Amino acid sequence: MNIRLVARQLGLLTVVLSIMLLGIWIWSFALTLMGDDAEHQAHGPFLITALIGFSIGGILWFVLRGGHAPIGRRESLLLVGTSWLIGAALSALPFLLWAYFSGNAQQNHPFGNFINCYFEAMSGLTTTGSTVLSDIEALPRSILLWRSLIQWLGGLGIVVLFVAVLPTLGVGGKKLFRVEAPGPDPEGVRPQIRDTARVLWFIYLGLTAAEILCLKFIGGISWFDSICHTFTTLATGGFSTLNASIGEYNATVQWIITVFMIAAGINFALYFALLRRRIRPVFRDTEFRFYLFLITISAIVIITTLMASGAPIVLTSQTEGMYDTVPATLPNAIQYGLFTTVACQTTTGFCTADFNHWPFIAKVFLLTLMFVGGSAGSTTGGIKVARIWISIKVMISELERVFRPQVVRPLKVGHTVIDNDLKLATITYVFGIVLIFALGAVLIMVFEQWHNPAANIDFTTASTASIATLFNIGPGLEKVGAVCNFGWFSGYSKVLMCLLMAVGRLEVFAIIVLLSPRFWRGD
Amino acid sequence: MNIRLVARQLGLLTVVLSIMLLGIWIWSFALTLMGDDAEHQAHGPFLITALIGFSIGGILWFVLRGGHAPIGRRESLLLVGTSWLIGAALSALPFLLWAYFSGNAQQNHPFGNFINCYFEAMSGLTTTGSTVLSDIEALPRSILLWRSLIQWLGGLGIVVLFVAVLPTLGVGGKKLFRVEAPGPDPEGVRPQIRDTARVLWFIYLGLTAAEILCLKFIGGISWFDSICHTFTTLATGGFSTLNASIGEYNATVQWIITVFMIAAGINFALYFALLRRRIRPVFRDTEFRFYLFLITISAIVIITTLMASGAPIVLTSQTEGMYDTVPATLPNAIQYGLFTTVACQTTTGFCTADFNHWPFIAKVFLLTLMFVGGSAGSTTGGIKVARIWISIKVMISELERVFRPQVVRPLKVGHTVIDNDLKLATITYVFGIVLIFALGAVLIMVFEQWHNPAANIDFTTASTASIATLFNIGPGLEKVGAVCNFGWFSGYSKVLMCLLMAVGRLEVFAIIVLLSPRFWRGD
Repeated sequence: MNIRLVARQLGLLTVVLSIMLLGIWIWSFALTLMGDDAEHQAHGPFLITALIGFSIGGILWFVLRGGHAPIGRRESLLLVGTSWLIGAALSALPFLLWAYFSGNAQQNHPFGNFINCYFEAMSGLTTTGSTVLSDIEALPRSILLWRSLIQWLGGLGIVVLFVAVLPTLGVGGKKLFRVEAPGPDPEGVRPQIRDTARVLWFIYLGLTAAEILCLKFIGGISWFDSICHTFTTLATGGFSTLNASIGEYNATVQWIITVFMIAAGINFALYFALLRRRIRPVFRDTEFRFYLFLITISAIVIITTLMASGAPIVLTSQTEGMYDTVPATLPNAIQYGLFTTVACQTTTGFCTADFNHWPFIAKVFLLTLMFVGGSAGSTTGGIKVARIWISIKVMISELERVFRPQVVRPLKVGHTVIDNDLKLATITYVFGIVLIFALGAVLIMVFEQWHNPAANIDFTTASTASIATLFNIGPGLEKVGAVCNFGWFSGYSKVLMCLLMAVGRLEVFAIIVLLSPRFWRGD
Repeated sequence: MNIRLVARQLGLLTVVLSIMLLGIWIWSFALTLMGDDAEHQAHGPFLITALIGFSIGGILWFVLRGGHAPIGRRESLLLVGTSWLIGAALSALPFLLWAYFSGNAQQNHPFGNFINCYFEAMSGLTTTGSTVLSDIEALPRSILLWRSLIQWLGGLGIVVLFVAVLPTLGVGGKKLFRVEAPGPDPEGVRPQIRDTARVLWFIYLGLTAAEILCLKFIGGISWFDSICHTFTTLATGGFSTLNASIGEYNATVQWIITVFMIAAGINFALYFALLRRRIRPVFRDTEFRFYLFLITISAIVIITTLMASGAPIVLTSQTEGMYDTVPATLPNAIQYGLFTTVACQTTTGFCTADFNHWPFIAKVFLLTLMFVGGSAGSTTGGIKVARIWISIKVMISELERVFRPQVVRPLKVGHTVIDNDLKLATITYVFGIVLIFALGAVLIMVFEQWHNPAANIDFTTASTASIATLFNIGPGLEKVGAVCNFGWFSGYSKVLMCLLMAVGRLEVFAIIVLLSPRFWRGD
C-alpha cells in the first residue's frame, strides 16, 4: 500500500476545497463591505479554513512529491474512502468557526458542536440533505451558499468518480454504469479519463446554467436562491436556503425543480449520447425507460391515494405558526404528489408537503422509491434502477429454473448480456445494502435508547433515519419527517449516520473494505 | 402437465389423512363411552370428515387409476403445493363441524368461521403454531390432539420431502440439505427414496418416543400432555394444549423441551450418520457447529440484557388474572432466556415468558434468529443456517473481489465446494424471501387498515405477524406476542397469512411457481 501517494492526492483535494473556500470568502467579504451585517462574523471562518486547507494540502502535496508510481486499486479505494471522510472535516470547519465567532455557539446553536457540523458537511458532500438545523433562514448567506456548493461538488464528484474513474478499476457493480449506455467504453477509457471527466463537467455546468436561468427568469426568484437551489437540485442533494424547503415557492418554481430533479436522476452517459446526436439509443435504454416507468406508476398511485383519502394536504410552509394546507383536488394532488415522488426517487429530498401525514400506501411507495433511487451514473443515491432491474430478472430466472433446469437463457439488459459474475455481484450488493440499512436502524434505536432516552425514539423514525442517510435522501418519516431535522439525535447516532452516508454514497465498497484486515495486509 | 397423475396422488394424501381422522374418532368415541362430556360433540365431526376424506380420496384414486407415467418435475411441484393447500382444508373441517355441533359457533367461537379453521389447520400442517384461539383449554381433548397431530405429520412430511424426495428434483437450494451431511447421496438416491423415507420415519418415531417418555417420567406430566407437546416440539410447531403454553409447567419440563427443540433443529441427515456410528463427521459439520454457535451467542446476549435491565421477567402463566413474574436472577434469566432463544431459532414458538417486554436488543436478537431458523433438513422454518452461512461467505468474498479481483478462491462449506449456480440460487433465495416478508408486512397493514380499522394495527405487529407466519414460528411481538393470538385479524389478512405459511414451509418455490404462467404453459 502506497500511503504516500494517497496522502499526496488528499493534499490536492484539500487545496481544491480551499480554493472554493477562498471564493466564498471573497464574496462574503464583499457583502460585508456592502453593509451585510450577518456576514460580519462569517467571512473570517472561510478565510481561516481556506488557509488551514492550503497549509495542510500544500505540505502534503509538496513534501510527498516525487515517486510517480501509478495509483493501484487499493490506493484508489483508500483515496476515495478517505476523500469523503476528510473532505467533510474541512467543509465542516466554517460552520463551527462561524458559530463561535458569531456567539451563536454560546446560545446552543447546533453548529456549536463539531459532530453537528461534521454531520451537516457529510450530509452535503454525500448529497444527502439531512440537516441538524431547525432555523435555516437565520444563517448568513455565505454559509448557506457553502452548504449548497459542497452538495454541488459532491454530486459532480460522484458522477466523475463512477463514470470516468472507477470503471477502469472494475469495482463491484460499477460495470452497471455502462449497461447499454452509449458513452465511452469503460474498458479502454483509461487514457481518456481526463476527456471523459471534462465532458461530464461540461454537461453538469450546462444543466446548472439552464436551471439557474429557468429559476431566475421563469420562476422569478432571486439569483442567490436560484443558484443555491440549482446546486442542490442537480446534485440531488436537497439542502434549501429556506425552512419550508421548496414549499415556500409557487407552483412554477416547483415544476421547474421537478423537471430538473428528473434530469439529475438520469445516467449522465445518456447526455453524452445526446451530445453526439445519438437520440435513439437513449430512448431504447432499458434503465432510462424503467426509471420513467417507476416515477409514473408511483406518482399515479400516490396521487390516487391522496385524492381517495380526501384529507387536506399539509404543506411545509407556515402561516402564523400553523402549517398551511390545501384541499386534495386533482391539480394539488398532481403538483405535490409528483414533486414528492420525484424528490424521493431521485433521493433529492426537497419537500413541499409533509408526506408523513399521507396515507400508508403512499408512504410505502415513497419508501420503496427511496430504496430504488435513480439511474446508475447519475448524482442520485439509492440502490439504483439498473441493479433493481437486474435483481428482478435474476429472481424470475431463478424461479423458472425450478421447473425448467435444462433451459439456460442468457440474462439481457437491452442488448448487453449480464454474466454470472455480475448477477452475483448485483444481487449480493442489493442484499448487502439492505442488511446495512437494517443494522443501521437497529444501532440507531440502541444508541438513542441508551444515550438519549428522552427522545423516546420509535422504530419508524430509526429505520427511516437509516434509509434517509444510507441512501442519501434527506428526510424520512415521523421524527425525521419533512418538517423535522436530525439535530436531536445523540452524537453516537450522528457519527453512525455520517458513516452510513459515506457508505451509501460510495456504494459500500470504498468504506467497508477499509475495515477488512486483508485490505491492509497487502498480500 | 399430467393433472390426472397429480389428482390421483392428492387422493392418496386425502385417504392417509382420513385414516388419522378415523383413529382420532375411535379414541374420541371411546372417551365419550367412558363419560367424557366434552367429547360428545367432538367425535361426530371426526367421523364425518374421515368419511368425506375417504370418499373424495377413494374416488380420485380409483377413477384416475391407470397410466403409470413417471411423475415429472412440474407434477411434483404442483403436487407439493396443492398437498398443503388441500390437506389444510380437510384438516380444518373437524374444527368447523365441532364448533357447530357443540353450539359454540353460535356464541362467536373462533372456529365458527371457516377461514379461522383453515388458518388453524394451515398453521398446524406447516408447523407454524400461530393460533386464532384465545381459550385453548376449553377445547375437547380430541380436537387438541388433532391440532398436535397435524403438526407432527407436517413436520415429518417436510423432512421426508426435502431430504428424500426433492433433492432428486434438484429444486432450488435443496442441494443445501446435503452440504456436508453424511447421509444418503441425493443424486443417486432415486431408487432408494423409500428406504431413506423409512429411516427418517424411524428417526422421527425414535425421537418422539424418547421425548414422550422423558416428559412423562422425568417431567411428570400426563400422557396426553406428553404426547401432544412431543408432537409439536419435534415438528418445531409450537401448538400447546394450555393457554400459557409451556409456561404452565415446571423448570424440568421446560428443560426437557429445550433439549428436544434443539434436537429437532438439527439436520436429520446427521442422525442418519449417527445411526451408522459415524460420529466424527457430525461434529465437523459446518452447519451444525454454526447452529450451536448461534444459539449459544444469542442466548448469552439475551440472558445478559435480561439481567442488565433488571426488570422482572413476565411469564405467560397467570394467577388470578394477573401474569406471573419472576425476578431476573441468573438462574431465571438462563431458564427463560435460553428457552425463548431456542424456541425462536428453531421456529417452534413455544412460550414460557412474554418476550414482548424484553429489552430492545433481546428482541432484535430473537427476530434475527427467527429469520435464520434451524438447520436445513430439519423440521424448522426460517431461511436455514446453511443458507445464512453461504450468504455470509458470498458477501465476504464479493467484498474481497473489490480489491483483489484476480484472486479466485473457491467458496467451501466444510469440504464441499459451493459452485456459482448454488451461490446465486442461495443469495437470490435469501433476498427473495426477505422481500416476501416485507411485502407480507405491508399487505397485512393495508388489509387491516381497510377492513379492520378498529384493531389500529401498528407496524411492529404487522411485520412480526409476517415473520411469524412466513418463517413458521408462531408468536411475534406486540399484538401477536406470546400471550396474544391471531384471531382478531381480518379474513383478508388471515388468508394472506395462510399463503405465507405455505410459501415459507415449502421454501417459496412450490407455491410461487404455481403463479407463473410459464409453469402452466408446459413448453
